[in-house]
Amino acid sequence: MDLLTKITEVRSGLDVHRAEGRTVGLVPTMGYLHAGHASLMTAAVGDNDITIASIFVNPLQFGEGEDLDSYPRDLDRDLEICRAEGIDMVFAPSVEEMYPRPVDTVVTVPTVSAPLEGVARPYHFSGVATVVAKLFSIVGPCRAYFGAKDWQQLAVIRRMAVDLSMPVEVVDCPIVREPDGLALSSRNFYLTADERAQAPVIRRALDLGIELVVDGETNPKVIESAMATKVATAPLGELDYAAAVPAETLVADSVLAGEVRLLLAVRFGKARLIDNDGAFIREV
Amino acid sequence: MDLLTKITEVRSGLDVHRAEGRTVGLVPTMGYLHAGHASLMTAAVGDNDITIASIFVNPLQFGEGEDLDSYPRDLDRDLEICRAEGIDMVFAPSVEEMYPRPVDTVVTVPTVSAPLEGVARPYHFSGVATVVAKLFSIVGPCRAYFGAKDWQQLAVIRRMAVDLSMPVEVVDCPIVREPDGLALSSRNFYLTADERAQAPVIRRALDLGIELVVDGETNPKVIESAMATKVATAPLGELDYAAAVPAETLVADSVLAGEVRLLLAVRFGKARLIDNDGAFIREV
Repeated sequence: MDLLTKITEVRSGLDVHRAEGRTVGLVPTMGYLHAGHASLMTAAVGDNDITIASIFVNPLQFGEGEDLDSYPRDLDRDLEICRAEGIDMVFAPSVEEMYPRPVDTVVTVPTVSAPLEGVARPYHFSGVATVVAKLFSIVGPCRAYFGAKDWQQLAVIRRMAVDLSMPVEVVDCPIVREPDGLALSSRNFYLTADERAQAPVIRRALDLGIELVVDGETNPKVIESAMATKVATAPLGELDYAAAVPAETLVADSVLAGEVRLLLAVRFGKARLIDNDGAFIREV
Repeated sequence: MDLLTKITEVRSGLDVHRAEGRTVGLVPTMGYLHAGHASLMTAAVGDNDITIASIFVNPLQFGEGEDLDSYPRDLDRDLEICRAEGIDMVFAPSVEEMYPRPVDTVVTVPTVSAPLEGVARPYHFSGVATVVAKLFSIVGPCRAYFGAKDWQQLAVIRRMAVDLSMPVEVVDCPIVREPDGLALSSRNFYLTADERAQAPVIRRALDLGIELVVDGETNPKVIESAMATKVATAPLGELDYAAAVPAETLVADSVLAGEVRLLLAVRFGKARLIDNDGAFIREV
């Protein structure tokens, strides 16, 4: 496995493989890898001749007062996980390598970015779209892998790739969870023991919402309020949003139909955790 | 020469050549080709194994009340010019092919886009950057060719390509002029005979500004006002802006130094014409 830190090394390293007709898969990450990332790598290694993982904590997608400085990092451990997963190349650039001067270019996907996370983190998705566009330019992947935990991020990236005709297939992989239902996230690292014990309430709130959808509930307010009430049973949890929205657009509607996504953001102390699940409204 | 209208045809057509290791040059145009475009094609055909020209009047870069509907079009004549220049493929998509549904993704380069044209046409450069990013994704060129007449556009595209690490060399080609100094532009088509007769005042105003710079003038106000006074000698011309700014950033400064660009935008009836020229401030 090669550890690369320069954009030119990535390009020339992959050009050799492309010239031989090999397919390239990309797993973009911010590092501090867990089994969720490992599942993306397993999928990528299975689908492609060559797989590259990027590890870059992207300053553009952190707002003021967010956790850019404290975001957990452990490159040595990350490299072990990549090696174990059969990754061929790791691209771990410095901030200076990625942004040698202030970036003037911004890629935005305004409609998909506006609700939910976009309300809490107004510049987050433009930072994500910009760095992912740049990583796609650097790597030139045939396929890129993202976890379904960041459902709205997936919708933003998918829309960007379609709108700009990017020659890449955006592949989503299922959420990986702890046995008690907590979705894996690098930010779980921030949880105290007490917070960790209560955090699975998020999964239980989603279960309750899914149950309502499956039972035929089409009023998003009813589903959202049931999920919020469930989250409120955890004294250390503070609800940011509970949403029941159409799965593709994520834009609130007064009556649900078709494929629905339930999304939650809940603060536990220093950690702001997000999670989601989906279901179909029964045809009547 | 192949005429292609579908994105998938372009991609598969070029992949065949790429697999053989051939280089690809792109000349993006809005059609109604003139000798300025032909000079881009000459350069591209000389530099690359395969050259593709795109012809697409991009609605995203026209503001309300601008000339999207009346913009001149003549595909048959354009194809003759492309054939004569040795172009291998022409990509002339419909608006529906490029934008099958409303585009939510926007690529912006705010700082470089803000002054000059950006004041007169606030959404113009985001439309340009977005369609050029999309054309780059569709074609995957090694090199792309743009005329220096649209100097600020060139600065926007160059900055986008650098910021996003796009694997393409942005090549600029010198302005091509009529014998009397008028820069070639598809919009010259709008000029009446009287307006056409007076339009070369733009070149003469630039000459005057360049003379001042060469003579050591470093106060942009003096240069700008001299150019404006010259333009005012043409009764049918209405000055939009006359600017003397640093060549790369285009951001106004109180004292000029290094490489300077002089830029003019002048309305003659229905035509809004732009032109520019550059010089170096003498080291003292």
